[in-house]
Amino acid sequence: MHSLIWRDTYLELIDQTKLPNSVEYVSCRTYKEVGEAIKTMKVRGAPAIGAAAAFGVVLGSFEVKDAPPEKIINHLKKVGEELLSTRPTAVNLKWAVERMLKRAERTVISNSDVVEELISEAVSIYKEDLHVNKAIGKHGERVVPDGAVVLTHCNAGALATVGYGTALGVIRAAREAGKKISVIACETRPNFQGARLTVWELIKEGFDVKLIVDSAAGYIMQRGLIDLVVVGADRIASNGDTANKIGTYSLAVLAKHHGIPFYVAAPSSTFDLNLADGSQIPVEERDPEEVRKVGTTRIAPAEVDVINYVFDITPGSLITGIITEYGIIEEDRIGEAGKWLEKMKSEVEKEK
Amino acid sequence: MHSLIWRDTYLELIDQTKLPNSVEYVSCRTYKEVGEAIKTMKVRGAPAIGAAAAFGVVLGSFEVKDAPPEKIINHLKKVGEELLSTRPTAVNLKWAVERMLKRAERTVISNSDVVEELISEAVSIYKEDLHVNKAIGKHGERVVPDGAVVLTHCNAGALATVGYGTALGVIRAAREAGKKISVIACETRPNFQGARLTVWELIKEGFDVKLIVDSAAGYIMQRGLIDLVVVGADRIASNGDTANKIGTYSLAVLAKHHGIPFYVAAPSSTFDLNLADGSQIPVEERDPEEVRKVGTTRIAPAEVDVINYVFDITPGSLITGIITEYGIIEEDRIGEAGKWLEKMKSEVEKEK
Repeated sequence: MHSLIWRDTYLELIDQTKLPNSVEYVSCRTYKEVGEAIKTMKVRGAPAIGAAAAFGVVLGSFEVKDAPPEKIINHLKKVGEELLSTRPTAVNLKWAVERMLKRAERTVISNSDVVEELISEAVSIYKEDLHVNKAIGKHGERVVPDGAVVLTHCNAGALATVGYGTALGVIRAAREAGKKISVIACETRPNFQGARLTVWELIKEGFDVKLIVDSAAGYIMQRGLIDLVVVGADRIASNGDTANKIGTYSLAVLAKHHGIPFYVAAPSSTFDLNLADGSQIPVEERDPEEVRKVGTTRIAPAEVDVINYVFDITPGSLITGIITEYGIIEEDRIGEAGKWLEKMKSEVEKEK
Repeated sequence: MHSLIWRDTYLELIDQTKLPNSVEYVSCRTYKEVGEAIKTMKVRGAPAIGAAAAFGVVLGSFEVKDAPPEKIINHLKKVGEELLSTRPTAVNLKWAVERMLKRAERTVISNSDVVEELISEAVSIYKEDLHVNKAIGKHGERVVPDGAVVLTHCNAGALATVGYGTALGVIRAAREAGKKISVIACETRPNFQGARLTVWELIKEGFDVKLIVDSAAGYIMQRGLIDLVVVGADRIASNGDTANKIGTYSLAVLAKHHGIPFYVAAPSSTFDLNLADGSQIPVEERDPEEVRKVGTTRIAPAEVDVINYVFDITPGSLITGIITEYGIIEEDRIGEAGKWLEKMKSEVEKEK
C-alpha cells in the first residue's frame, strides 16, 4: 500500500479524509492542487507530505519548462514557498522542497532538462523514503519484545509515508521478525487518524489491533496493558525535543509515570538541526470547527472558543530512544541527537 | 437550571443526549422509564442519577400503593435492583435507592402512606443535593485564586447534579465570591460531555470557557495555561481512590508532573466506605459503537475491537484535596478520607 504514486504526468493520492469509509483517489495535476491536498489533509504525515511536495515542485516545473533559466528558478521558488505555507510543523516539507530547488539550480547551471531532473529527484525522495522506513523498522524491532502490546498515536504508518511507515514500520518489522505483536491505537482527536487510518491499515494486514479514546491511555497503562509506546514525529530539534501529533506529550508523561519505554520513530529528514530545542518549533493551530464538529454532527456550541494546537512538543528527556534509519539514538545521547545524527551521516558518507 | 424536576406524578428530565443542539425534555412516568433514561445517559452525572433513581422508586411505589406491606416492599426491592443494574460505577445510585428502601420499610412499619412518604424522601434527596453543592462550592472556592484558569473534565455541573454542580459549583462559587475565573473544558470522549454539556452550561452563564480535545491537556499544562484542575467523582473509596470519567487519571498524572493542584469535588454520597481502595470499584465498559461512531459518522472500521472503559481510577495519592460539603479533605489526610468523613458526619450529628 502506498499513500501516493507518481503517474508520469500527475500525482495520485489516496484521499485520507475519506478513509476508512471509502478508498478514493485524487489526481493532482498542478502544484496548487498538491498544496491544497496537503492543507486539507488529503495527504498527511510528515514523510508523505515531503514526498507529495517534491512532486508538487515537479508539477510546478511543467508550467515553465520552456522558459529561460532565471524564470524557471523564480517560478520554482514561488512554488516552493506556496507549498511550504500549507502546513508549518512537519519539517520534511521544507527538507523536500529545498532539496528539489537545489536540484533545479544545479540543473539550470548544467543546462539539462529541468522537468526530467526534477522527476528523477522526486522519485529518489520517494524511493529513499521506502528504504529509510525499512531501515527504521529493522533497527526499531529490536526494542519490541515478542508478545508485546504496543501503544501508538495518530498514524505513523504506510499512509503517513510513501509506504511501510515509521512507528508502524517498527511494528511491521517486529512481526516480520517472527514476533507476536498486538497494537492499541489511540483514536487521535480531532482528526481521528488513529481510528480512521492506523486501525484501517493494521486490520487490512491482519494485525491484532484495539482502539481506545485518547484519554484512556493513562488508565490502560495503569492496568498494565501496555509494554511500550512507539510514535512518529513531525520535527525533531537538535536536543531531541520532538514535535508530533497533539497528545504525544501526554503519552510521554504517562509512559514515564508508569515506567513504560517511549520510542519515537522518524527518518533523518524529520530532524531540524537549525533548531537548538523544541521551543523554536512552530506548532500549527487549525480551524476550531475541527473540534466543534465531527462529520455533520455538532458536538459543541458553535460560539465556543477552541484551543486547537494539532501538535505538541515532547522534551527529549521523556524519550527512551529515537529510532532513525542510522540506528537508535539511546536515552543518554538524546540531548545531543543532532550531533549523533551528523556523525552517523558523515560516517556513512565516508564509507561511500 | 435543573437537570430534573418532579412534576407531582412524573419525573421530567432534560434529555442530555440532545444537548447542545436542542433543549428537549422527557417525561418518565414509570420506574422502567427512569431506568432507561439512566442507561441511555439522558440523565447522567453521579448525583443526578441518584436523585433520578429516588424518583424512580417513587414511580415504582405508584404501582403497588394499595397492596399489602410485604408486597410493597418486595416490589420496591425489585424496582431498586432494576435501577441499580443500569449503571455500575456511580455509587450515588446505590446510596439513593437504599435510602428510599429504608424509608419505605419504616413507612410500612408505621402504617403511613408509602407514596406520600417516598415522595417526601425523594424531595429531600433533591433539595439536599442543591444545599450540598452550594456547600461544596463555598468550601472549594477558597482554593481557587482570583484570575485562575481552571481545567475541568466531563461535566460535573448543574446537569450532573440536581443543580449548581460539584466541580462547576466550585467555579460558580469562586465567581460569586468576586473572583475572575476562566475555564478550559476537556471535550471528554467518547460522549463529549465536556464539549456538549459543560461548555453549554458555562456559556449560558457568561463564563469565559475554552474547549480542547482531551489529549491536549498535557501540552496546555506544559505551556503554563492551567492554574488548577477540578473534577467531579462517581465513587470514592475509603482511602481516597476516586472513580471518575475516563481521562481523569491521565489529568491527575499530568497535573502532578506539572506541579498543578488537582482537586476532586464530590458530595459525601459519592463515598463508598465499604471499599478499602479503588481496585474494588466496578468500572463500567460501554458499547464499542460509542467510540467507533460519532452521530451518524463512522470514524473507525466497524469490525475493530474497542476497549471502552468509561471511568478510571485515580489514586488518592495524586489528589491535592477532596472538596465535600463538610469541608476539604487535604492531601495529607486523603489516605484516610473515609475516617475523616465519618468523623465530620458524627460531629455534625452531635451538633444537631
